[in-house]
Amino acid sequence: MNLDRNARLKVVLIDTRNPLNIGASARAMSNFGFFDLRLVHPYDVAFREAVSAVGASELLRNAPVYTTVAEAVADCSLVVGATGLGHRQLQHPLHRLEKAGRLLRRHMESANVALLFGSEKFGLANNDVSHCHWLLHIPTRPAHDSMNLAQAVAVCLYELIRQPSTARHWPEAAELAPGEEVERFTVLLEELLQHSGYTDYGQAKNGEDKTHRLVRRLQMRSRDAAVWTGMLRQILWKLKHP
Amino acid sequence: MNLDRNARLKVVLIDTRNPLNIGASARAMSNFGFFDLRLVHPYDVAFREAVSAVGASELLRNAPVYTTVAEAVADCSLVVGATGLGHRQLQHPLHRLEKAGRLLRRHMESANVALLFGSEKFGLANNDVSHCHWLLHIPTRPAHDSMNLAQAVAVCLYELIRQPSTARHWPEAAELAPGEEVERFTVLLEELLQHSGYTDYGQAKNGEDKTHRLVRRLQMRSRDAAVWTGMLRQILWKLKHP
Repeated sequence: MNLDRNARLKVVLIDTRNPLNIGASARAMSNFGFFDLRLVHPYDVAFREAVSAVGASELLRNAPVYTTVAEAVADCSLVVGATGLGHRQLQHPLHRLEKAGRLLRRHMESANVALLFGSEKFGLANNDVSHCHWLLHIPTRPAHDSMNLAQAVAVCLYELIRQPSTARHWPEAAELAPGEEVERFTVLLEELLQHSGYTDYGQAKNGEDKTHRLVRRLQMRSRDAAVWTGMLRQILWKLKHP
Repeated sequence: MNLDRNARLKVVLIDTRNPLNIGASARAMSNFGFFDLRLVHPYDVAFREAVSAVGASELLRNAPVYTTVAEAVADCSLVVGATGLGHRQLQHPLHRLEKAGRLLRRHMESANVALLFGSEKFGLANNDVSHCHWLLHIPTRPAHDSMNLAQAVAVCLYELIRQPSTARHWPEAAELAPGEEVERFTVLLEELLQHSGYTDYGQAKNGEDKTHRLVRRLQMRSRDAAVWTGMLRQILWKLKHP
């Protein structure tokens, strides 16, 4: 869990009516390692006592309350709104959560992101959306796309801390060829290209770098790397001994 | 959303105390297209009136109540328990949700799966776990791994309906080289291997098939395929004109 990166995410709940939802959102944030909750005019001023914030009462106690969305997102260079398809705003790009998560994580590597959630009943208002660079939607059934607010928060945060490599079917990280095997292949390839007079890269600036990147994009598996290296070695031998 | 596959998942809530959690779990199920909710001795017999089942009251009304876990999972050939790390049962395999989701989906292609959630306070009891083939855990912070029950249900179901292809960074499906480009590369490679006297595959049974599979495992991008093909062509030319 990358807590430095997580710290750059600001969860902004706007016009929330039910304090239990605020508490449950705080709990989900704490579960997944996010601690910066911000509220924009919550309906119930006593939200800080929400019993649903199990294990996250300090997070809830520290959550600042803002009067406007503009103030709540003032230190964020990317503002994204979570919305159902029913509230789709055609003038904004809309990404499914899977893709949105990737975009958010990338931004969070270096800068603050605000993730906005609207009220339980109406979602984000047009005025809230006007602060957003783009929108995300959780891929629910179109026939029933209205999620519980705190569940939506939990699902979005899970997507952000998810580790794709844990699920990836193939190639498993352990199967990938280590750097020295990839390098051995690359060196052979370069020698081969030189011997055969292949010049497209040689003439280019950074020709060697380009070859390196070209090979690394293949993401060869370790067993395959041995085969490929054997092939190149044989071809090179033949070139030298015609 | 694959509703046929989804229908093979049975969400089993055991010893649930708060009917609001049952209702909110039903809502998340309906959001993500799962409709088979099963209850094992819920604490509150009036759970069917839970106001939290917004949009999922029919699903909640239809949920059967069982006296034992054994009855609730009788028609399932895979039984998996959701657990926090704190409740880790060392005698059972434990998978992170990302991987568990993949395993569950695979089973759900053809057979029923039961996904068990224990009580809010204690999680799955040892006796419940004894019905499980393996356990899954949602990757929460170890310091605060106790999730709200209905949020845990929502996150697990989201993982099951998630479409990895929507998030995959690279290569995008659209960037991958089409079959004819891969084939062109493969044919050149085979000719090159033959000319250079590479015999490891030639002597093997199905040598050509092996080369085909080797190339396809590279998952070359279209632009890269053109570069690789150009390289092979130049090397082959040089071999023929020493």
